[in-house]
Amino acid sequence: MPKVLITTVPFADKNRLPIELLRKENISYLINPIGRKLKERELVDMIADFDVIIAGTELITEEVMTQGKNLKFISRVGIGLDSVDLLAAERLGIKVSYTPDAPAPAVAELTVGMMLSLLRYVQLANSQMHQGLWHRYFGRRISEITIGIIGFGRIGQGVIDRLTSFRPYKILVNDINNEVEFTSMSWIQFATKEQILEQADLISLHVPLTSKTKNMICYDELKTMKKDAIIINTSRGGIINELDLAKVLNEGHLAGAAIDVFEKEPYDGELKDIERCLLTSHMGSMSIDCRSLMEIEATKEAVRFLSGQSLQSKVPMEEYDVQRQGL
Amino acid sequence: MPKVLITTVPFADKNRLPIELLRKENISYLINPIGRKLKERELVDMIADFDVIIAGTELITEEVMTQGKNLKFISRVGIGLDSVDLLAAERLGIKVSYTPDAPAPAVAELTVGMMLSLLRYVQLANSQMHQGLWHRYFGRRISEITIGIIGFGRIGQGVIDRLTSFRPYKILVNDINNEVEFTSMSWIQFATKEQILEQADLISLHVPLTSKTKNMICYDELKTMKKDAIIINTSRGGIINELDLAKVLNEGHLAGAAIDVFEKEPYDGELKDIERCLLTSHMGSMSIDCRSLMEIEATKEAVRFLSGQSLQSKVPMEEYDVQRQGL
Repeated sequence: MPKVLITTVPFADKNRLPIELLRKENISYLINPIGRKLKERELVDMIADFDVIIAGTELITEEVMTQGKNLKFISRVGIGLDSVDLLAAERLGIKVSYTPDAPAPAVAELTVGMMLSLLRYVQLANSQMHQGLWHRYFGRRISEITIGIIGFGRIGQGVIDRLTSFRPYKILVNDINNEVEFTSMSWIQFATKEQILEQADLISLHVPLTSKTKNMICYDELKTMKKDAIIINTSRGGIINELDLAKVLNEGHLAGAAIDVFEKEPYDGELKDIERCLLTSHMGSMSIDCRSLMEIEATKEAVRFLSGQSLQSKVPMEEYDVQRQGL
Repeated sequence: MPKVLITTVPFADKNRLPIELLRKENISYLINPIGRKLKERELVDMIADFDVIIAGTELITEEVMTQGKNLKFISRVGIGLDSVDLLAAERLGIKVSYTPDAPAPAVAELTVGMMLSLLRYVQLANSQMHQGLWHRYFGRRISEITIGIIGFGRIGQGVIDRLTSFRPYKILVNDINNEVEFTSMSWIQFATKEQILEQADLISLHVPLTSKTKNMICYDELKTMKKDAIIINTSRGGIINELDLAKVLNEGHLAGAAIDVFEKEPYDGELKDIERCLLTSHMGSMSIDCRSLMEIEATKEAVRFLSGQSLQSKVPMEEYDVQRQGL
């Protein structure tokens, strides 16, 4: 009987279908008993004779794969692949699938909510009101500012789609694909990262974590931004250097920041002490519908693998190339 | 030389044009020296020989008007008229103007931000993260829920416009004008208040404060709502009964609430102690652009009045009728 290790938690919390799918196929499974993101050592100790991992964002290194003597397939619940050593998987003949479409609407919607909150100082007013302080903050509207979107993939596009009905003044977009063209709408245009850093009143990051994007936004980049600008990261921790962000905010630069993703999760760093930094706990994909869809898709893919059917969302070769070129 | 009392604060803080307009016309002015919303007694003591009030939301009662021996014109910075005794003004020959269009975009945008934040438990996660706690909340998306909009005026319509790009599942609308029809979009329909209370996952209020809307949402109405529903009030304090809301939330009913307006401002009541109640300090119209536009329009109207030009945004007769019928 094949054995599946489900490392991502919570799992099947709001929709039991993934569990039902496994039971129907007589697949034995274990849900991460530690109940939080696993450390590499914990996963090495746990992997033993499992055939498949239904994986979260924990590190799945060469050592994990080597210790998993029976491991043949990794099904990622989500889109990011920075946590999986794809080249080791390739060498060891371990196949990898993911769910690239399912999380995008939830991440895009959280991001727009953070934009509107930060622009109007909602979380600052909320925390002061709960302390009995009344201060009316002046804010700004989407139609008054220049927005910079770095990363024009599924999520970056989803954010821009949702901003449309707010009649944006100007959106500057940067992407590794330089050939993106926006002929239909005058208010959206391609820009370099430098132009975005200098001109945008609000910057939102929607890039994968790779050797090229790690520490993409450090002290100098943050200081290049306008003094009253805002930065949002709902993509991956490490793309903005957290220590540099804390330093810049403590120096009085930037009007605010919103950070949903961290280098080490659960997060317990300096940004905790900065009130104008809105913090959430990697909740980008955590809408009931999107999270359920991600879990169902990843589980179906595991069932397909174990029953010898062809896979439907194998990680494409360019993702392997990203890691190969990073070496 | 005519004298203008500016009661609303802050005033001309981000854009000096209103002050320049007054100076250019040699109009003498005083900005509220107390620096917060005036009490009736304070305004009575202050009104003396002023000809015009450029007014906030403080009460302008018959006594204020009687004590203001020279008072001939009230120019409201904003849309709500619940604070002005229009019938006393009519009897005393005091004209009243307002700025009904200027605040709408800012209020609508804050409201949508609050919807997205509450649906994803952003302020709860933020306050826990700042305390060093990591909990990943499951939330919901606009396209998964039924939204109830009570009040289909400038702001209610502005909210719905902005939600369009989130592909709403269903929006139920109630308005005193029963003849509103939505033939073009299948996902929006007219409903009674009772249907909205029973069916909506999120209710947002966009009605004026009148004798008919005061205490429109009390204990029974809140308990009629779904246990995991959300309610938002960015219109006027008193439309939701604050004590009843606190009671219901303390009983564990409702997933969350967002309240920007209060019966008595600055607010210092029970909701302060309820973490899942998002509180802001009457900031609906406080975007720099909308607030400046409101102040400029109200000041221009005061200049028009004092130079004998015809008024451009006199309060229409139906607003007087609302107060007349309320008696």
